[in-house]
Amino acid sequence: MRVGVLGAKGKVGATMVAAVEAADDLEFSAGVDAGDPLSALTDSGTEVIIDFTHPDVVMDNLKFLIDNGIHAVVGTTGFTQDRLDQVQQWLDAKPGAAVLIAPNFAIGAVLTMHFAQQAAPYFESVEIIELHHPQKADAPSGTAARTAKLVAEARKGLPPNPDATSTGLDGARGADVDGVPVHSVRLTGLVAHQEVLFGTQGETLTIRHDSLDRTSFVPGVLLAVRKIAEHPGLTVGLEPLLNLG
Amino acid sequence: MRVGVLGAKGKVGATMVAAVEAADDLEFSAGVDAGDPLSALTDSGTEVIIDFTHPDVVMDNLKFLIDNGIHAVVGTTGFTQDRLDQVQQWLDAKPGAAVLIAPNFAIGAVLTMHFAQQAAPYFESVEIIELHHPQKADAPSGTAARTAKLVAEARKGLPPNPDATSTGLDGARGADVDGVPVHSVRLTGLVAHQEVLFGTQGETLTIRHDSLDRTSFVPGVLLAVRKIAEHPGLTVGLEPLLNLG
Amino acid sequence: MRVGVLGAKGKVGATMVAAVEAADDLEFSAGVDAGDPLSALTDSGTEVIIDFTHPDVVMDNLKFLIDNGIHAVVGTTGFTQDRLDQVQQWLDAKPGAAVLIAPNFAIGAVLTMHFAQQAAPYFESVEIIELHHPQKADAPSGTAARTAKLVAEARKGLPPNPDATSTGLDGARGADVDGVPVHSVRLTGLVAHQEVLFGTQGETLTIRHDSLDRTSFVPGVLLAVRKIAEHPGLTVGLEPLLNLG
Amino acid sequence: MRVGVLGAKGKVGATMVAAVEAADDLEFSAGVDAGDPLSALTDSGTEVIIDFTHPDVVMDNLKFLIDNGIHAVVGTTGFTQDRLDQVQQWLDAKPGAAVLIAPNFAIGAVLTMHFAQQAAPYFESVEIIELHHPQKADAPSGTAARTAKLVAEARKGLPPNPDATSTGLDGARGADVDGVPVHSVRLTGLVAHQEVLFGTQGETLTIRHDSLDRTSFVPGVLLAVRKIAEHPGLTVGLEPLLNLG
Repeated sequence: MRVGVLGAKGKVGATMVAAVEAADDLEFSAGVDAGDPLSALTDSGTEVIIDFTHPDVVMDNLKFLIDNGIHAVVGTTGFTQDRLDQVQQWLDAKPGAAVLIAPNFAIGAVLTMHFAQQAAPYFESVEIIELHHPQKADAPSGTAARTAKLVAEARKGLPPNPDATSTGLDGARGADVDGVPVHSVRLTGLVAHQEVLFGTQGETLTIRHDSLDRTSFVPGVLLAVRKIAEHPGLTVGLEPLLNLG
Repeated sequence: MRVGVLGAKGKVGATMVAAVEAADDLEFSAGVDAGDPLSALTDSGTEVIIDFTHPDVVMDNLKFLIDNGIHAVVGTTGFTQDRLDQVQQWLDAKPGAAVLIAPNFAIGAVLTMHFAQQAAPYFESVEIIELHHPQKADAPSGTAARTAKLVAEARKGLPPNPDATSTGLDGARGADVDGVPVHSVRLTGLVAHQEVLFGTQGETLTIRHDSLDRTSFVPGVLLAVRKIAEHPGLTVGLEPLLNLG
Repeated sequence: MRVGVLGAKGKVGATMVAAVEAADDLEFSAGVDAGDPLSALTDSGTEVIIDFTHPDVVMDNLKFLIDNGIHAVVGTTGFTQDRLDQVQQWLDAKPGAAVLIAPNFAIGAVLTMHFAQQAAPYFESVEIIELHHPQKADAPSGTAARTAKLVAEARKGLPPNPDATSTGLDGARGADVDGVPVHSVRLTGLVAHQEVLFGTQGETLTIRHDSLDRTSFVPGVLLAVRKIAEHPGLTVGLEPLLNLG
Repeated sequence: MRVGVLGAKGKVGATMVAAVEAADDLEFSAGVDAGDPLSALTDSGTEVIIDFTHPDVVMDNLKFLIDNGIHAVVGTTGFTQDRLDQVQQWLDAKPGAAVLIAPNFAIGAVLTMHFAQQAAPYFESVEIIELHHPQKADAPSGTAARTAKLVAEARKGLPPNPDATSTGLDGARGADVDGVPVHSVRLTGLVAHQEVLFGTQGETLTIRHDSLDRTSFVPGVLLAVRKIAEHPGLTVGLEPLLNLG
């Protein structure tokens, strides 16, 4: 399989070039960065492209790729519903072309969300602890907030978490995200970590995801590259490519 | 829903009687123990029975229950394939009757196995750590051994765990269960705990189940009581009653 | 060593009677409860008493014990500074008599606080997570609040935890106890658990204490019984009896 | 304080140069690497040197440093008892000179060992789990083996871990290091992690150290640089510089 990289000189792009070159079953076809002509992709016979570029250019990239029947695995951010609708429209006109757009390629993070949703109906209590380096600006993390919303959705109709707290300090019981308490720890030395804790009579279930370095997106991108051709049309999120049925 | 308990005076049975009585949506209809006539179940209009009895009597119980159209949730042990075939045959003759036989009703344990199988194909490495009180006779635990086998099955065709260990002490790398290292910790103060650890580039995923007391089977049995009528015929294991599709 | 129990028919007292009887090196001398004469202790040659009674009676107990040269290990609550001063005064008049009064006999809890104080000066960041059953009324727990205060004291003069949080939800960053964030999780199935997390460049240190059942005070009380004679006078807290120098 | 670095162009040395330059209270005086004259240290008024060089040259370095009254913080390996005796002899002849030689500067690792030794006498059971990346050649890790030996030493005279294991698989119960079971996990994505688990009636205590990147030695080296002048003579290991009394 011939694989190209858009944004090939960016930090993430360069990591992906190296990863494609290191994979026995993939062949690196072309790297394109700002200023380079997109025709390098067609000239090199690229079958699948990895796009970690910028919201300003990604739509032009996708138009070109779809028109030329090159499948795209996209980690670039900034996809509004309008943009997704536009991509869908282009794909409708080009049967067989495939685009995957995912906000998070870390397989562990995707599985954590999936498992948390599956477990949610079967426990009385659920809380989330996320732990990150202290340079992080938002608390809770976007991933934790999203996980909490998904869990809350999966528990719809069930009684709320039991909680007899009657005296205490502000903040002790965490942030409330749709009824799910979320606790944010900021600690020098940490990278990005999340625990979803479930409890019922006599037992608890904990799903923990640890990102230990900045390359944890690599296996998920490679998995998407290998599977994208089996998923023509538009796919949002890595989850549909995993066999979680 | 009218619910009876077979083995009502045993430790587990008595716990289940109390749990049925405490549940708003269930009504305790009859408790039967050794020497009591099974007719107490039909006389009391029992719709679902919970059977935590003994391999010596459970088959007679099931024959009676199926004949009388009483659904059965069974935690009694000792079901060989021959016994399962016999139960299946009785059920074939009585459409609508439902029997669930499960070796483990702790929902957290069942979900741990299910999630571990789902995650298994997406990680380079997997190991299991189980931790129990020091009175336990077997190492690894039956649950850990079974989890390892299921994980190994789900990884079939993938490369083995990478492991460069070249010098070391016997036992450091754990027990090998179909290629999955399993480590058994025995510590005063613990009850029953299990961690399945997955790792790939830059990230790890950990699924941990803690049984903190001996009543962790209760929510799973009640869940089975409530859902059994929707699953006519023979069901083995709690998993098919959970919405894990 | 002949050991008696005051409050012998209470839940904790009865547990201690059983624990003394089970210990090879201790002999159970006498159990005294409300209405029983204290002379049963002197008549039985009791050398050390365990007192889990009530604030209303504990001072009278201690006066009698000190006067009669019986060492006392006291878990009864309600000791104000005035009460401690009074006990000290009685002990001053009776050289050799020994009284230990401790709010917490769980050795793991005591060690967690001790280690947390020792580690505190060497890390940039520290946070505390405490996890309890959902029937608990206060958040954070008294133990977590006290641990946070001790850690804050040990960090006096050091820069505060780094924290770039600029946007977020109320409560996400926990309760602030003297500059130490404390997060309180309430989950069905849990008993009493606490984690102190320290972080500095490239590494973290976590000290975790799990109380898994209500008898975790037993080993600490027995340790105090065995060592009290070596600590004449008044001792507050279990820590001075541990060799932590 | 004027601080120099020997082995300044090596990976560790370069990291230390950057760390000294980034510290407000330290001034980088001179970097010396293979082929550079040691006189650069005296010429630059260096007060403390950091030596991460090679067993072949470290003894000559130390002779020069001691003779010139420059304190030395040494992470270079290969110190036999003979070498330590020689350094001691040089220091005896030069009162006021200070040399610290440490095999491990990660404060979390040093504290883990210290706390484990302190806790050891108070628990019935102790086991160690160490978790590393799968490229590691030895199992258990040197740190885990050393921790186990220290814990075993601190438990001398106590009964062995209770363990009723009667049937099982080879290796399940880990490696035996002086009676302490040690379990080695090897998982892609991990760096270097260690847990010491203690258990007694109703409670457990866990001390966990996570090294998340290769720079976790930096804070310990800087701490040693700041404190070495207060510790004239030879100090082995970082522990004596921490206030753990």
